[in-house]
Amino acid sequence: MTQTARIWTAALLIIGDEILSGRTQDRNIAQVAAWLNVQGIRLAEVRVVGDDTAAIVEAVNVLRARNDYLFTTGGIGPTHDDITVDAVAAALGVGVVIHPDARAILENYYATRGGLNDARLRMARVPDGAELIPNRMSGAPGIRIGNIFLMAGVPSITAGMLDALTGTLEGGQPVLSETIGCWAQESEIADLLRETEQAHPGTAIGSYPFFREGKVGANFVIRATDPAVLAACAGALLAGLSAMGRDAVPGGI
Amino acid sequence: MTQTARIWTAALLIIGDEILSGRTQDRNIAQVAAWLNVQGIRLAEVRVVGDDTAAIVEAVNVLRARNDYLFTTGGIGPTHDDITVDAVAAALGVGVVIHPDARAILENYYATRGGLNDARLRMARVPDGAELIPNRMSGAPGIRIGNIFLMAGVPSITAGMLDALTGTLEGGQPVLSETIGCWAQESEIADLLRETEQAHPGTAIGSYPFFREGKVGANFVIRATDPAVLAACAGALLAGLSAMGRDAVPGGI
Repeated sequence: MTQTARIWTAALLIIGDEILSGRTQDRNIAQVAAWLNVQGIRLAEVRVVGDDTAAIVEAVNVLRARNDYLFTTGGIGPTHDDITVDAVAAALGVGVVIHPDARAILENYYATRGGLNDARLRMARVPDGAELIPNRMSGAPGIRIGNIFLMAGVPSITAGMLDALTGTLEGGQPVLSETIGCWAQESEIADLLRETEQAHPGTAIGSYPFFREGKVGANFVIRATDPAVLAACAGALLAGLSAMGRDAVPGGI
Repeated sequence: MTQTARIWTAALLIIGDEILSGRTQDRNIAQVAAWLNVQGIRLAEVRVVGDDTAAIVEAVNVLRARNDYLFTTGGIGPTHDDITVDAVAAALGVGVVIHPDARAILENYYATRGGLNDARLRMARVPDGAELIPNRMSGAPGIRIGNIFLMAGVPSITAGMLDALTGTLEGGQPVLSETIGCWAQESEIADLLRETEQAHPGTAIGSYPFFREGKVGANFVIRATDPAVLAACAGALLAGLSAMGRDAVPGGI
């Protein structure tokens, strides 16, 4: 059966000088990617830009147009380098307004934390027409406008916002995967991988070599949305490795 | 003194389905960023694309045109999903040839490892006109063509290729940074940060909040290329925090 199901895609835009300077190790690509898989949405592309309005505007307008969803992380805090809301509003050609529910959330959150000052009130600013994404970790909410989701950059807060979005986005069939490991150089298996993938339309096989304990090996990851196609491809790869006299490790090494 | 020195920039293009699927946690953004800083080159933007020729071609042509350097990681191995060389050649409008030195390196490397087969010989293929980047970790070299540097995706091998390139690229003044930590919510310090940055042209101050041991705090990172400007800005921020009755932690928390 041919895979004709619609594929839903998302882009991720990571905003922050701290990632580009190497100061902060990004954790959000893997986190967002894994979450999207469960929603049946494929992460199609990622960009990282600095705290720069022109760079954010350019990326937002390209990525939102050619993907079903665009997620951003970073730049929605209270300080002068937090410019994501203004940049996204500029990209969309809308103004920036104080969201009354966000203001109420922040007033409540800061009631016992010194009160709502001008900097904190910045976190209630949203592009005109936006809705809020609940933040279960700290006060300031995330923001949804159209197909764009603005989330915090701190991974634990990002996680809470993703959790709040779970099950709310339309997606397609989740991508399933099966991993087969082998203590062999991938260059010995390359022909088999290519032929096996070609013989099973609807699959993609990735090959990920490693060096451990002085030995070389590789994990072969088969991805497909149809479980039957996935199983047939995995079976063929295992049989092929066996025919070459190679011990395969189902589940990967 | 105004900063008029030329700023050298680089882009990083990460190629691989394994990053976009969330299977592999990226380590190359932070690694390449930190290495570039030492070379006096600023990482200006990063993109992650899958094993897809059109996506690679688009990114390569945009990024190489508007940055002094473009680095890529991933997709230069021996298997069918390793398409970086062909995609970069297509982006440049040149053919793909076997590089004689790369072939010799691989023949030597595989002499005791089963010999050079077709899959392994793929790793000697380069865009026409390219030079090699030594690989001190495993057989296959990296590739330089024009201002584009094609490196391996496995972080330890990437590291060896960066090491081989150290000191060979023209750059400008390295970006210096100083970090000041404070056990305060960044929203309490936001005005001081903005004013201090504005009062010290040539600096950028980033604010990175955290939650630890039940307490909130933030690290403020000041970046500048001129050490005197950096020191003056750091001194002003420390004095401002002191005037607010806040204990600052030089070096960060």
